[in-house]
Amino acid sequence: MPTTILPDWLARAAANFPDRLALVHGPARWTFAELDRRAAHLAGQLASAGLRPGDRVALLAGNGLPYAACVHALTRLRAVLVPLNLRLSAGELAWQARDAGVSLLLSDAAHAARAAEVTASLPGVPHAVLHAAAALSPPRPAGREGRGVRTPLRDEIDLDAAQAVMYTSGTTGRPKGAILTYGMHWWNATASALNLGLLPDDRWLVCLPLYHVGGLTTLIKSVIYGMPVILHDCFDPAAVNAAIRAERVTIISVVAVMLRRMLDALDAEGGDGRYPPWLRCVLLGGGPAPLPLLEDCAHRDVPVVQTYGMTESCSQAVTLAPHDALRKLGSAGRPLAPVQLRILTDDGLPAAPGEPGEISLRGPTITPGYYERPDETATAFRDGWFATGDLGHLDTDGYLYVLDRRADLIISGGENIYPAEIEAALLAHPEVAEAGVRGVSDPAWGQIPIAFVCPRAGATAATVTPTELLDFLRPRLARYKLPRVVHLVGPLPRTAAGKLLRRDLPTLLPPDATI
Amino acid sequence: MPTTILPDWLARAAANFPDRLALVHGPARWTFAELDRRAAHLAGQLASAGLRPGDRVALLAGNGLPYAACVHALTRLRAVLVPLNLRLSAGELAWQARDAGVSLLLSDAAHAARAAEVTASLPGVPHAVLHAAAALSPPRPAGREGRGVRTPLRDEIDLDAAQAVMYTSGTTGRPKGAILTYGMHWWNATASALNLGLLPDDRWLVCLPLYHVGGLTTLIKSVIYGMPVILHDCFDPAAVNAAIRAERVTIISVVAVMLRRMLDALDAEGGDGRYPPWLRCVLLGGGPAPLPLLEDCAHRDVPVVQTYGMTESCSQAVTLAPHDALRKLGSAGRPLAPVQLRILTDDGLPAAPGEPGEISLRGPTITPGYYERPDETATAFRDGWFATGDLGHLDTDGYLYVLDRRADLIISGGENIYPAEIEAALLAHPEVAEAGVRGVSDPAWGQIPIAFVCPRAGATAATVTPTELLDFLRPRLARYKLPRVVHLVGPLPRTAAGKLLRRDLPTLLPPDATI
Repeated sequence: MPTTILPDWLARAAANFPDRLALVHGPARWTFAELDRRAAHLAGQLASAGLRPGDRVALLAGNGLPYAACVHALTRLRAVLVPLNLRLSAGELAWQARDAGVSLLLSDAAHAARAAEVTASLPGVPHAVLHAAAALSPPRPAGREGRGVRTPLRDEIDLDAAQAVMYTSGTTGRPKGAILTYGMHWWNATASALNLGLLPDDRWLVCLPLYHVGGLTTLIKSVIYGMPVILHDCFDPAAVNAAIRAERVTIISVVAVMLRRMLDALDAEGGDGRYPPWLRCVLLGGGPAPLPLLEDCAHRDVPVVQTYGMTESCSQAVTLAPHDALRKLGSAGRPLAPVQLRILTDDGLPAAPGEPGEISLRGPTITPGYYERPDETATAFRDGWFATGDLGHLDTDGYLYVLDRRADLIISGGENIYPAEIEAALLAHPEVAEAGVRGVSDPAWGQIPIAFVCPRAGATAATVTPTELLDFLRPRLARYKLPRVVHLVGPLPRTAAGKLLRRDLPTLLPPDATI
Repeated sequence: MPTTILPDWLARAAANFPDRLALVHGPARWTFAELDRRAAHLAGQLASAGLRPGDRVALLAGNGLPYAACVHALTRLRAVLVPLNLRLSAGELAWQARDAGVSLLLSDAAHAARAAEVTASLPGVPHAVLHAAAALSPPRPAGREGRGVRTPLRDEIDLDAAQAVMYTSGTTGRPKGAILTYGMHWWNATASALNLGLLPDDRWLVCLPLYHVGGLTTLIKSVIYGMPVILHDCFDPAAVNAAIRAERVTIISVVAVMLRRMLDALDAEGGDGRYPPWLRCVLLGGGPAPLPLLEDCAHRDVPVVQTYGMTESCSQAVTLAPHDALRKLGSAGRPLAPVQLRILTDDGLPAAPGEPGEISLRGPTITPGYYERPDETATAFRDGWFATGDLGHLDTDGYLYVLDRRADLIISGGENIYPAEIEAALLAHPEVAEAGVRGVSDPAWGQIPIAFVCPRAGATAATVTPTELLDFLRPRLARYKLPRVVHLVGPLPRTAAGKLLRRDLPTLLPPDATI
């Protein structure tokens, strides 16, 4: 079949409902016509600067309207976005920019100094700054002139074309650039609409970084749906709670630790501890949700939709409806409409219900592969199925239970131990805010689990001690799963998307500590 | 790109919400689990009878639950549905079945005698009857045994595969079988959801025949959405009005004459002449809507969404939102999200705004072509664009105005006359229920228009005469567009989809009449 060509999504939204609100960021409000105008202007500047179809453009910017304009401007030029993670060092950023072969680095004003630091080690890659109006300054970055014919702006989108190369290391390993195509975004947007419905008053709050797949996909969904996005710089629970009320937010994407902080902030306000009725969906990603959190949400009628997904699946691939949240506790739910899921045992055979194996996904929301990484692409795919690197099982109703990252699996005396299971048991303790478990070498058992716990605010030595936590775990876990030691620590290391970084847990301990 | 494979839509709906209502037909109500079970059972019977992937199966049946089960059963077998039009003669039906090379003719009990008449002239094509429970009788139609290995049932859908071959002649010419792929259905379903929204309480009433694209696509949308369909045998305005209330129908697809009769029936009930608030969308297809009807709908707050589409575009391709209904009077609106539209002049160049030309469509909801008609497929497509055979123009906002069928264009003294324009002018007269115009040969002018008018019920010679109607038209139309004669007749000939059949208008006159 020939590739599918669609009319440009933003141009269509601007033509169909020019005056509808597209983006809210602080006091700034852009309609779809305004967003379209800004994107077209920036695209024109980039074309004049010599940008060509297929060029990769790195973007180092915080959440804001220029980010959105830039995403759509690159579409007009058929250039490919390389979103840079603001938490990385200049060296790591330069590595990604070099790996993606970018021909331009754009930043917002706040990250201009860091961007200059990055391009200092990238000869021939100019740097330009996007100002608040999403215009380029200078309009023609040095080194970009004279590349021949000015690229015409395009009003069509080729679904097979790459929209972005987004670096991911999962939670382990060397980063690689997952290709996100326009088709993946389209299918993700329509699959999400089929799952959640599409209501005329929908407004989606984005407090995840736009350089993360969860933020970027919502930005793109919004122009496909013609739906306003309320964009926050970063996650501030009180600000999020206020915006849900003031901006009539209906959908929000968060991870469990964020939701816990939102509920705590809600309680601190002294009201009835509930959200307004228009908040119809709290998409909860980034790993299994702790039982006390789900119970608290059920008690307050917070409509939690748990999700499982990753960069390579263009965000959510599997979701659990609110009415299943407690009935199917611990499950990530069932695949979205276009997604096929199977669990393969180590022998490569389909697992029986209840039998653990690697989670594999197939469908039009799944990446075609990693940018210029044929070997890693070949490793990740078998017969068109993407091996997620996550372990899980299906119940007899076909609901997915994610056990853990394959790489984080602890094998102790020949038994498989899933850190997530121990973490879930710890998170059921009322005084535990965060829990992380990893394996360490042991001469007798091969590996043994150790735990890191961040107590909830207000917890004291009277209410939570390592001994108390081990006593709490003992009736809940088989003996071989009991952590050898529980470390009480501060907030746990997480990715920008809120996923726990188990490999970094030991950095929480003093250098001379015995882990 | 490889073809896209999705999980079977009905199987997924049955797994995700087994107890949700799928279909209502009279007193019968099937859940998605029930529909899935019936479809699987029938598919098993068809497999045992020797049906193979790719086989074409003609279906001669009225709207009902067996029809729906059969549609989904054929999907499980990767067989291709050939829906037969109940209005056709046995000879016409046999021609279509032969043209499509069907290997089996299925009918419901009510159409069994007619089906037997059809297969009598189709040697080697067996006939089997679907009973009310959607089971086959006899379970193995004669002549189907011994075709080798039993076809396994499939739980995946290949979007490039043909779901149906649906015969269409537009409103003129020799019928040809338009291929409807699964991808066309998927894209139509998601595009419609993006346009109309997707609400948890949606229920779609189908009173169009299921052998017509408007009925069939809704049946398939319903399993993609997980949405109940209220299925009527045929169009009965009082029954439709009653069902909108009793079954809480939110969406209905009709043509203008049907909507007029619904409103008249509503008035006859003696209530407030309004529909309940949950009726959120009346999709109006089958040609331009008369102004008095649109004004009446606006007055009653009937949310009319005008549409333009055809079999080859898998139903709606262009729609007009209710808030534009009066502002953009006479327009069919703007293309759905995945559809591209252009108007080409006779020179093959893009028309300027306001300039008429042939309407061409491109996108994943458009047919790949006609079954075993390479010449007609080649004629209909230019560079991947489907030439609809309809004339129209775009205004400066990109709204489509459909002028007429190219084949129905009247050229009179070198001037183009669009029958639809004269019909719209006639329909603006309060005593006119239906109007049809066609050209007849004239020695002086080449062609001249003549009109056929069906007066509204209750109209008398005192209120509507040919002279009165010509007087009504005179200030509204240029002199060369005035019909030479106006014939007062009964209901006008229409396709099963409600489209006016202009070529059949002369059959309304006595054999000796001068047209």
